[in-house]
Amino acid sequence: MKSRIIKKIGVLTSGGDAPGMNAAIRAIVRTCTYHHVECIGIFRGFQGLVEGDFEPFGPRDVNYIINKGGTILKTARSETFKTAEGRKKAYENLKKEAVDALIVIGGDGSFTGAMILSKEFDIPVMGIPGTIDNDIRGTSHTIGFDTALNTVIDAVDKIRDTASSHKRLFFVEVMGRDAGHIALNAGIGAGAEEILIPEENLGMDRLLESLKKSKKSGKSSSIVLVAEGEKLGKNVFELGEYVEQNLPEYEVRVSVLGHMQRGGAPSCFDRVLASRLSVKAVETLLEGKKNYMVGLINDKVELTPLEQAVKGHSPIDMELLRVSDIISI
Amino acid sequence: MKSRIIKKIGVLTSGGDAPGMNAAIRAIVRTCTYHHVECIGIFRGFQGLVEGDFEPFGPRDVNYIINKGGTILKTARSETFKTAEGRKKAYENLKKEAVDALIVIGGDGSFTGAMILSKEFDIPVMGIPGTIDNDIRGTSHTIGFDTALNTVIDAVDKIRDTASSHKRLFFVEVMGRDAGHIALNAGIGAGAEEILIPEENLGMDRLLESLKKSKKSGKSSSIVLVAEGEKLGKNVFELGEYVEQNLPEYEVRVSVLGHMQRGGAPSCFDRVLASRLSVKAVETLLEGKKNYMVGLINDKVELTPLEQAVKGHSPIDMELLRVSDIISI
Amino acid sequence: MKSRIIKKIGVLTSGGDAPGMNAAIRAIVRTCTYHHVECIGIFRGFQGLVEGDFEPFGPRDVNYIINKGGTILKTARSETFKTAEGRKKAYENLKKEAVDALIVIGGDGSFTGAMILSKEFDIPVMGIPGTIDNDIRGTSHTIGFDTALNTVIDAVDKIRDTASSHKRLFFVEVMGRDAGHIALNAGIGAGAEEILIPEENLGMDRLLESLKKSKKSGKSSSIVLVAEGEKLGKNVFELGEYVEQNLPEYEVRVSVLGHMQRGGAPSCFDRVLASRLSVKAVETLLEGKKNYMVGLINDKVELTPLEQAVKGHSPIDMELLRVSDIISI
Amino acid sequence: MKSRIIKKIGVLTSGGDAPGMNAAIRAIVRTCTYHHVECIGIFRGFQGLVEGDFEPFGPRDVNYIINKGGTILKTARSETFKTAEGRKKAYENLKKEAVDALIVIGGDGSFTGAMILSKEFDIPVMGIPGTIDNDIRGTSHTIGFDTALNTVIDAVDKIRDTASSHKRLFFVEVMGRDAGHIALNAGIGAGAEEILIPEENLGMDRLLESLKKSKKSGKSSSIVLVAEGEKLGKNVFELGEYVEQNLPEYEVRVSVLGHMQRGGAPSCFDRVLASRLSVKAVETLLEGKKNYMVGLINDKVELTPLEQAVKGHSPIDMELLRVSDIISI
Repeated sequence: MKSRIIKKIGVLTSGGDAPGMNAAIRAIVRTCTYHHVECIGIFRGFQGLVEGDFEPFGPRDVNYIINKGGTILKTARSETFKTAEGRKKAYENLKKEAVDALIVIGGDGSFTGAMILSKEFDIPVMGIPGTIDNDIRGTSHTIGFDTALNTVIDAVDKIRDTASSHKRLFFVEVMGRDAGHIALNAGIGAGAEEILIPEENLGMDRLLESLKKSKKSGKSSSIVLVAEGEKLGKNVFELGEYVEQNLPEYEVRVSVLGHMQRGGAPSCFDRVLASRLSVKAVETLLEGKKNYMVGLINDKVELTPLEQAVKGHSPIDMELLRVSDIISI
Repeated sequence: MKSRIIKKIGVLTSGGDAPGMNAAIRAIVRTCTYHHVECIGIFRGFQGLVEGDFEPFGPRDVNYIINKGGTILKTARSETFKTAEGRKKAYENLKKEAVDALIVIGGDGSFTGAMILSKEFDIPVMGIPGTIDNDIRGTSHTIGFDTALNTVIDAVDKIRDTASSHKRLFFVEVMGRDAGHIALNAGIGAGAEEILIPEENLGMDRLLESLKKSKKSGKSSSIVLVAEGEKLGKNVFELGEYVEQNLPEYEVRVSVLGHMQRGGAPSCFDRVLASRLSVKAVETLLEGKKNYMVGLINDKVELTPLEQAVKGHSPIDMELLRVSDIISI
Repeated sequence: MKSRIIKKIGVLTSGGDAPGMNAAIRAIVRTCTYHHVECIGIFRGFQGLVEGDFEPFGPRDVNYIINKGGTILKTARSETFKTAEGRKKAYENLKKEAVDALIVIGGDGSFTGAMILSKEFDIPVMGIPGTIDNDIRGTSHTIGFDTALNTVIDAVDKIRDTASSHKRLFFVEVMGRDAGHIALNAGIGAGAEEILIPEENLGMDRLLESLKKSKKSGKSSSIVLVAEGEKLGKNVFELGEYVEQNLPEYEVRVSVLGHMQRGGAPSCFDRVLASRLSVKAVETLLEGKKNYMVGLINDKVELTPLEQAVKGHSPIDMELLRVSDIISI
Repeated sequence: MKSRIIKKIGVLTSGGDAPGMNAAIRAIVRTCTYHHVECIGIFRGFQGLVEGDFEPFGPRDVNYIINKGGTILKTARSETFKTAEGRKKAYENLKKEAVDALIVIGGDGSFTGAMILSKEFDIPVMGIPGTIDNDIRGTSHTIGFDTALNTVIDAVDKIRDTASSHKRLFFVEVMGRDAGHIALNAGIGAGAEEILIPEENLGMDRLLESLKKSKKSGKSSSIVLVAEGEKLGKNVFELGEYVEQNLPEYEVRVSVLGHMQRGGAPSCFDRVLASRLSVKAVETLLEGKKNYMVGLINDKVELTPLEQAVKGHSPIDMELLRVSDIISI
């Protein structure tokens, strides 16, 4: 297949929003301008693609957004795009606007959608990993992960203030249905006494044992960081209750950090990452390549075929679990 | 009764901790030193008073704490202190250590405890209002309230990022079982579309009406700030569900901010307030007065008899409710 | 003079920008809508008035700005407006657009401009105090002051980390050419050992004496907060050098916080203040009153004739100086 | 040489302090406890080594420090340690306290000192890279670098508020005498229009050219990030003046961020990095190895012989310069 000349690139954000998505949009728009290519913003993800909710973006349209959380392109779920008819409409909208290629900022679900479109209509696509969960293969860091970690430890630092004033045990639930990256990293960063993640089932007995030991070692307050998807068969409130019943020496409280983890001004790391990945995504398309995800591997920007990127989650770093065990002594 | 000469002052923190308590402790200790009076720190509130958990504090012992959340003196509930026997022990501990007067940093429950002790054993006490809830008569601001407001709007700003990216409606629960000061002020500060507080029962119908109007006015996302003690007869999760069922045009999410509202580095306002009130509390004792709460009234530090301070909560400012209605249009 | 019916209100920001100006603009626009009055935004202060740089603002045009620093209306100096000819042009622009009244958000210089316009052309004006310096009569707090204080103590908290690690003495210059409000309040909040302000000349000898005493008392690091306009006859770098020469036991460093003090997300206090003052400013005009500044006096929103507001600066609170002396012991 | 059995490890921080040093100290102390090895804290860097300013540290002595900036062990310059006599004293102090090995947290200067001591007295040493400058070979990230970047972009975000309100050009000086890592990364993160670093001499003509182009492209405000060690032969104030004279269309302001860059609560990245490197440093000594620096290479913790680590600075990433050029269009 001959590579087309790319004159116009469309960009959309899809799935859960993540801090740094705006930095990515800004870098894509400006890299297009730099290479004399037009850029079209597509609103509300694949739904906007289906509906033709398009707008041309120039370099001044992305002023003052590098430090803003959320996504100026909005994001939405699209049931219509899941139908063949919906995708046909999407393609026709792209054709009508003469959009030659598509960049999708989002998670693995979003990349799957992009791949199907690409296969069905031979439209070149590129994926940029934007999600706070850091659960995508082909990149050591997704855009938004670093910011979410800082949001979590900032909140847990505050909770620690009150935990230590009252000598309490706190269970703090953080995001991560399928992957424990946030809980594991933020748990180390926040100095958590225990970390419960989907990838490891500590078991209730060992949790109780560990908390008992922690108390004995002279600690007056304790934080347990809990990923949404932990595998103990109890939700975080049930966990708290169970522990309070079994360890009456502890006064237990529960906190669910929730959606604030998705927002906020992106960290410098996420802004730089978003900028680097986005420049590469545009330039990869201009070189005539397609259907890759750009990611960070060994601190370098690298390409991974989209097909591989969507296959399962990135594994957690077992060394980190060990580090956590040692330094929570 | 002749006023004694005060040579040694004890200080304790009691009730829920609040940012700025450490700034108050620091100022009390140093004001004592300034006036050549000794200062004794009492750990874990009234429980430490009963147990004699005392430690002398000098000006260098309170270095580097003005910016720390929580309380270095810890706080705890004390069932023992509620008994006559417990209070007798407390008094004996004070006598043994030659403590002439007591400063209690906390809320109205803590002040009640202090008053009873004072009446039973003729020990001069002073109250300093430290609670994030701002629900104490005799002061326009309690220590910790301003910091909690900033913590809340910072979290809601983050939630707004994701709310507006997804065009969602968020119910955000903030602290305030009996008083809506946090919800009302932070609601205005965060640009909330509606504010639900214990002092006002909007009614479910008017809430639905208001949210419908908000949507029609072109708003793509909405935040409703909910005080714990709101009077709609549903908890925040039930509220969210009810609204989602009755207003299908909205995608609803719920967030409970929880204990992070109690912690964090105090704001400048709270540090200055804590310092001013604490200097006055010590000097009031040294002037031979007793059983007052120090508070901020019309930007001046004023005394209110402790008896009055514990009588009911401070009312909310109805003007603020009106301001909120107008600017959420 | 009969009061006109107000159908259209113009708003501009002038002088140095301050956090909370956008919250004020938002509240003005929405209060206008609430009362069925049109609102016109005037860009770049009085210069935009002269040039007719106007734009109608509706309630959705001020979405998502309550938490943004700076001013979306921009601000600028205007030499033209200082001429009679320039002001005539300004008036003609207002007349052409049928603007019936003008709200000016800024400091005393901006209010003076507004008063002159009002006198020359009988256009009703209102002033809203927006400046980080808090140096305006008729209000206990100007919009932006509280945020600037938090920015300063956040920076000084960071400097304290390194000061105490190295056992150094830091001179930190903060804004305040004519008034020491920032230095005084932030100095107490940051736990500064000394505070140098325009309103008080400590004298070099007493400064040295105080620093010597501070060292002797066992403090290992020290922070001196210096207002730009301090009266010791040396700039902050010369001060640092002088002290290092005369107190060789100290290793001195200097830090000038600069313009970051003007920016950042406004604090909850400033957002609420801006909202309250702005509602009142619009409603005062609609009641047929004019030429007042809205301000906070004893926690209530009150009116002060603009003429009085521009007469000299608000004095500093001498009690605060005393508090600072006591707690820096 | 046979490797000794390590029973007691000393730790010191040296050189400029950096956020995350306390997280490293905490992890070293606790890893020692975990492996049943004693840990000795040495105060004030090599000077404390010379003076025998030692204290045993247990796991509870490092509670609540993971989130604190600065270093609880303090840091200082030591002229005495540079003499053979001073180092002999240092060694004798180690011998007297039966300290078997030394971990030094600091920059290349500190590592050089450690190496000399190790060679002269056969004491095993390990280096942990702690400096905000990120200028050490053998690690992609030094402890403190990530936090400093976030501090810088947070400050520049604030400056951008006021820059854009006034349509001004700001020169912002950040740390980096020999290396431009901070300026380059924070420059991209803050959306700077130009970045001046020691590693690249843009030349005054090209700077003026670029700023002219920026103005023409429709930008209303501009930020130039300047590393202390930039090579244009003018300091940042002279730069600002020169540009204002040659580009009268710009109103120029200068801001020097200064020492606040060294402080503050460490980011999650720095806390995790410090924890990982510190566990490895202790365990490397316990394996009988010595004279290595632990660092992050390709996201893995790796060892680099100390001798190599101190040889020159880590080069900047030329790709980042290119990214910056593209996205500041």
